[in-house]
Amino acid sequence: MDDRLKQQLDFALEIDKEKNIFRQTHLSGHGRNENDAEHAWHMAVMAYLLKEYSNEDIDILRVMIMCLIHDIVEIDAGDTYAYDEESKKTQKAREDAAKERIFSLLPKDQKDEFTALFDEFERYESAESKFAHALDNLQPLILNNSNDGNDWKEHGVSAQTVYGRQKKTEMGSKKLFEVTDDIIKENIRKGNLPEKTE
Amino acid sequence: MDDRLKQQLDFALEIDKEKNIFRQTHLSGHGRNENDAEHAWHMAVMAYLLKEYSNEDIDILRVMIMCLIHDIVEIDAGDTYAYDEESKKTQKAREDAAKERIFSLLPKDQKDEFTALFDEFERYESAESKFAHALDNLQPLILNNSNDGNDWKEHGVSAQTVYGRQKKTEMGSKKLFEVTDDIIKENIRKGNLPEKTE
Repeated sequence: MDDRLKQQLDFALEIDKEKNIFRQTHLSGHGRNENDAEHAWHMAVMAYLLKEYSNEDIDILRVMIMCLIHDIVEIDAGDTYAYDEESKKTQKAREDAAKERIFSLLPKDQKDEFTALFDEFERYESAESKFAHALDNLQPLILNNSNDGNDWKEHGVSAQTVYGRQKKTEMGSKKLFEVTDDIIKENIRKGNLPEKTE
Repeated sequence: MDDRLKQQLDFALEIDKEKNIFRQTHLSGHGRNENDAEHAWHMAVMAYLLKEYSNEDIDILRVMIMCLIHDIVEIDAGDTYAYDEESKKTQKAREDAAKERIFSLLPKDQKDEFTALFDEFERYESAESKFAHALDNLQPLILNNSNDGNDWKEHGVSAQTVYGRQKKTEMGSKKLFEVTDDIIKENIRKGNLPEKTE
């Protein structure tokens, strides 16, 4: 086997570990915690399914690749819960080190490409990145909504905090933010989500 | 929320169940059984990573969507092990019924699109379908190889049987079939895989 293909297959085997990185979100039907690979798969399918709602014209292939690879760094860096302010302080340094180690398994051209896609996702500037983030927000929201907001209850999260993250969905899709807003309001009404933390 | 978006989100929530459909393949590091959503994610990333090895020119976006959705029918139909000849007899009927129920959750245009992509994958004729199948074969092979062929040992599978399935990888990618052939031969040499079933 030539070196290039060997590097690609070493990377393919390494990323298998993403299936063991568990998130705070639970599967529908009050299921177990979801892992990063499942989350990425779900986001990518939803990106394709909902692409008509992007605010801007997008290259859907690039959105889907961003969705599929954006959490690979968590193989080393671990999952950082969206509302854990302490962990978020060290998140960038942990993820930068992981990005360097894991993408360096690839041939140079693909290391550069995957790194650029990851960085583009993180910068939250391009149309593709904004739409991918909208899915990164919406996907756990629909699971949590289907489970009566249990993930929020478990972490004592308030609507104010949820809006802090979810309002950025509007940058990628006004339409998907309308749904997000409806879901949050419905959960406040049902008592699943306090408006503000006491 | 309008009807179209409601249908799309109902489908998005329904396919969450794919994360509970477990396969015979085990994760690397002698891990647990893999589920369909993880397998689809891994295949889609590998398709993008290895696209240069397709025998024919391909639309990689279509390959990736096929990878991502090809097992959704298993939510109803269950996983059919590649070497379980009894289950394979009823597989098509079970999967056709599932396809009709699950894709009917979508708006008509998207039901038609997803059904056509699923059918194209199953027909094994287009360049995209053949390359997607090469990944459907290679992805579990690299996991099983990393685990000393334990999935084969558990099911008493022989190299002859493995070649029966894996030789079709050559239709999508001669280069990836070379790797497949190397891996199978190495596992025969190591005693992980008998050449023929006794």
